[in-house]
Amino acid sequence: MPYRRAPEWQISHWFNTPEPLTLARLQGRPVLALAFQMLCPGCVSHGWPQFLRVTAAFPELYAIGLHSVFEHHDVQGTPAALAVFLHEYGIDVPVGLDMPGGGAGPPLTMRAYDMKGTPTLLLIDAMGRLRRQYFGPVSDLHLGAAVAALIGEAAAGNDNPPADEFGDVGRR
Amino acid sequence: MPYRRAPEWQISHWFNTPEPLTLARLQGRPVLALAFQMLCPGCVSHGWPQFLRVTAAFPELYAIGLHSVFEHHDVQGTPAALAVFLHEYGIDVPVGLDMPGGGAGPPLTMRAYDMKGTPTLLLIDAMGRLRRQYFGPVSDLHLGAAVAALIGEAAAGNDNPPADEFGDVGRR
Amino acid sequence: MPYRRAPEWQISHWFNTPEPLTLARLQGRPVLALAFQMLCPGCVSHGWPQFLRVTAAFPELYAIGLHSVFEHHDVQGTPAALAVFLHEYGIDVPVGLDMPGGGAGPPLTMRAYDMKGTPTLLLIDAMGRLRRQYFGPVSDLHLGAAVAALIGEAAAGNDNPPADEFGDVGRR
Amino acid sequence: MPYRRAPEWQISHWFNTPEPLTLARLQGRPVLALAFQMLCPGCVSHGWPQFLRVTAAFPELYAIGLHSVFEHHDVQGTPAALAVFLHEYGIDVPVGLDMPGGGAGPPLTMRAYDMKGTPTLLLIDAMGRLRRQYFGPVSDLHLGAAVAALIGEAAAGNDNPPADEFGDVGRR
Repeated sequence: MPYRRAPEWQISHWFNTPEPLTLARLQGRPVLALAFQMLCPGCVSHGWPQFLRVTAAFPELYAIGLHSVFEHHDVQGTPAALAVFLHEYGIDVPVGLDMPGGGAGPPLTMRAYDMKGTPTLLLIDAMGRLRRQYFGPVSDLHLGAAVAALIGEAAAGNDNPPADEFGDVGRR
Repeated sequence: MPYRRAPEWQISHWFNTPEPLTLARLQGRPVLALAFQMLCPGCVSHGWPQFLRVTAAFPELYAIGLHSVFEHHDVQGTPAALAVFLHEYGIDVPVGLDMPGGGAGPPLTMRAYDMKGTPTLLLIDAMGRLRRQYFGPVSDLHLGAAVAALIGEAAAGNDNPPADEFGDVGRR
Repeated sequence: MPYRRAPEWQISHWFNTPEPLTLARLQGRPVLALAFQMLCPGCVSHGWPQFLRVTAAFPELYAIGLHSVFEHHDVQGTPAALAVFLHEYGIDVPVGLDMPGGGAGPPLTMRAYDMKGTPTLLLIDAMGRLRRQYFGPVSDLHLGAAVAALIGEAAAGNDNPPADEFGDVGRR
Repeated sequence: MPYRRAPEWQISHWFNTPEPLTLARLQGRPVLALAFQMLCPGCVSHGWPQFLRVTAAFPELYAIGLHSVFEHHDVQGTPAALAVFLHEYGIDVPVGLDMPGGGAGPPLTMRAYDMKGTPTLLLIDAMGRLRRQYFGPVSDLHLGAAVAALIGEAAAGNDNPPADEFGDVGRR
């Protein structure tokens, strides 16, 4: 099998959900997660609008935000700061605060996925495998294709997808 | 099989191709066709830009334009008018002039597909079956999904696709 | 006086007006005219939308379209073709068909203003003087400034405006 | 004179300027100021892009940002938070942190101008008079007109402008 299991995320604080959302609990449906920082311009201008567009178009997805603060922790990194951001932007999907790794570096989930920065999109299939990871812009055309393929597999009960014709990080 | 064979198109004049492009000749790769009128505002502002975006993103597609003139035939309907439009807009994909049906009504290909107007997108799979027909706006997300599914089937040699989970005319 | 009198336009056919609109008749209010061709992509995608935006924002303006066909006369140049274009695009401001100059060259109004192509915007003050001529893109910021200045002069009865601080063809 | 003197702003901390910028010091050129909050979506998506567009188009303006925090003071209201925002968004015009008024209410400059929220644009003429105050969206067309009028007055040494034909808060 060419895909690795998506690392379980490590979250210090959840918003917009009554209980923690582990990957294990979400299995059975594809997951689209957006790792962002509240003061990252590309996250606010492109990442979040596209993420909300995709999750509205494909309600079969679990939609999860990950606040992966790797710089300016004092300003962006607190639950209070994240709560204000979510309130001001009217975001009501579940969002987890990525667990600080100690010191000034990236948080633990960001490290486990070896993310290069924000925004990063993670696309995880219904079996819990990491199928796509996009850092920076990806077109709606290619993202829609990647998402729909996982929804189709889940609907068909197909747990042995073809090797990915789009390469490691997804066609953009 | 839930899909019907795409009707062969009927063309009076081809542009940007050394020889006529019948559906029979194109079999083996999915086809995306845009039926338009040169003076239809939605075709110019949305239809053509999206069509060119999709065909650039997915080079596995055959990209075909169909000039399906169902009104103002005297102004829009001549090969000379279409030639000027293609030149001014820098369109270099093959475009066929949909065969006039006689009188003021819709042309023959438009009738065969029972198109409601322009722009209409036709998505035909590598086996020559009509899989999607969109009249008016469709999101890049859903169009990318539909196109990529047919490319995936063709690559896998899968000629027995699942019943369409998106319904008759495609999710938008 | 640093401004020249705007040349009277020469029109073979008017649309959307019960009688011909000479510049002499329009004097007393500023005039914004858009010279275009129906198959010029920049005219359709940028020129007309901006022109309609400006004339809606500043109802003090006379808004006039000039169909200045300098190429592909057989396809674009007839009153019938222009009528279809205006109908399909829902344009209801007065539009004049610039008088053909004979042969394949530019029409007479286009020549009188020495236009370089389409779209071209002409801004004429309430005294009938040509104050701005923009070929190609101009920002809403600078166009709004230029239009409002002429409206202000007309309201103040000021017929001796300062030399233009923006230069010959207008700041963009 | 129908215009009131713009109240001097009250700033607790300046960024991107070697010394405090009082209105008295800026007199002689028109001033465009943007009052914003770093976590206000409309400020980030529309207010700042338009402000930067206007100040690039009209270099005769003094461009000033005012961080007028009237809610979520603990997250948005510190100099450290503002410094991160300016760094992440690449903003290099002078920005002042509006002086907190004590408690949870609006800061002192916001009160002095009776601002209704953010984003708010203030347009102050070269004589130090408040000429326009826009809360929320204003079109580039009308903003360009208002700005250029003040630049024209300043260039002409005209200190007795006509009563404003656009009304109290500016045409949008």
